[in-house]
Amino acid sequence: MAEIEAIARMVNQLARLPGVGRKTAQRLAYHILEMPEDQVRELAVAIFDGKKKVKLCPVCGNYTEGKLCAICRDSQRRRDIVCVVKDPRDVNAMERMRDYNGLYHVLHGVISPMDGVGPDDIRIRELLSRLGEGEIREVVLATNPDVEGEATAAYISRLIKPLGVKVTRIAHGVPVGGELEYTDEITLMRAFQGRREL
Amino acid sequence: MAEIEAIARMVNQLARLPGVGRKTAQRLAYHILEMPEDQVRELAVAIFDGKKKVKLCPVCGNYTEGKLCAICRDSQRRRDIVCVVKDPRDVNAMERMRDYNGLYHVLHGVISPMDGVGPDDIRIRELLSRLGEGEIREVVLATNPDVEGEATAAYISRLIKPLGVKVTRIAHGVPVGGELEYTDEITLMRAFQGRREL
Repeated sequence: MAEIEAIARMVNQLARLPGVGRKTAQRLAYHILEMPEDQVRELAVAIFDGKKKVKLCPVCGNYTEGKLCAICRDSQRRRDIVCVVKDPRDVNAMERMRDYNGLYHVLHGVISPMDGVGPDDIRIRELLSRLGEGEIREVVLATNPDVEGEATAAYISRLIKPLGVKVTRIAHGVPVGGELEYTDEITLMRAFQGRREL
Repeated sequence: MAEIEAIARMVNQLARLPGVGRKTAQRLAYHILEMPEDQVRELAVAIFDGKKKVKLCPVCGNYTEGKLCAICRDSQRRRDIVCVVKDPRDVNAMERMRDYNGLYHVLHGVISPMDGVGPDDIRIRELLSRLGEGEIREVVLATNPDVEGEATAAYISRLIKPLGVKVTRIAHGVPVGGELEYTDEITLMRAFQGRREL
């Protein structure tokens, strides 16, 4: 069916999505061809409208359909603590734990010289200008516990500490429900170093 | 992020695709939000245009962007033999073997009483009317070797044979490169029954 250009184009576009190989893209394309036209329209519109309507919150960088995001707008939340995360998905993860009541700052990336991403390519400047307003007293660095996440946390920490703001890092350790036997050495070392008196 | 309706709608729509669960749909949605807007437009347009532009060939039922499909249009192909398949994907599979030079007839389904699909719900009537034109001398039934495919082949065979047309079924047997040891009994039985003198 390679000669049908409209199908080939659909397959090519779908195959650009992450985790979608050519075979999967073909399967999806044929499924879409079998769907009723109004359902296909709904799918295409949902994709395009979603992209068009969803903006970044000018304060924290989280996704929003309005001007400020729902969290920045929420007057019930503490404004003196900010949790710094890599991307909006991490905001979701933090919100799922239902234990944090402060604000967020979404970096939209982490420092990664290998990928050509420097400090100016992520929203660090915006974080500094938020801190300049003087309301924030603690910054919790919640980037991932991988090389780039650690480096980004260390970089931001060095930058912020001189401003007299408390800077904390989320704890590393054995995951709840995990087993020591299957925990890698570095995590175990971090868990040991981070031990607390009971 | 459940409160952002445009994202929720995108996730819901993507989750309706086959093999795409909620987690995958979320991953795809967030990826789409990070894509440049013109790339997202290309994706949405490719999906919707594909669906709108691709029609069924009025003769064989295969997909086509024009009126007749490329195979029905091709004057180099034999017009006296028709290979009956379940859906357009099977046409692709047959064409990949590069050994068949006749026409196709796409049923768009197989008889399956369990799913409420009867003989009138698939393109059997259209096959009979093609046979009525008198040019076709052999019908190769190439539906899948599963229960529904076999039942559909048997049904069509009974219907066509009285018309004096040669009806054949693709051979079942041990797949090339397969091993006897790992071949199921029914396939092995079919392979044995279909043995040929060398």
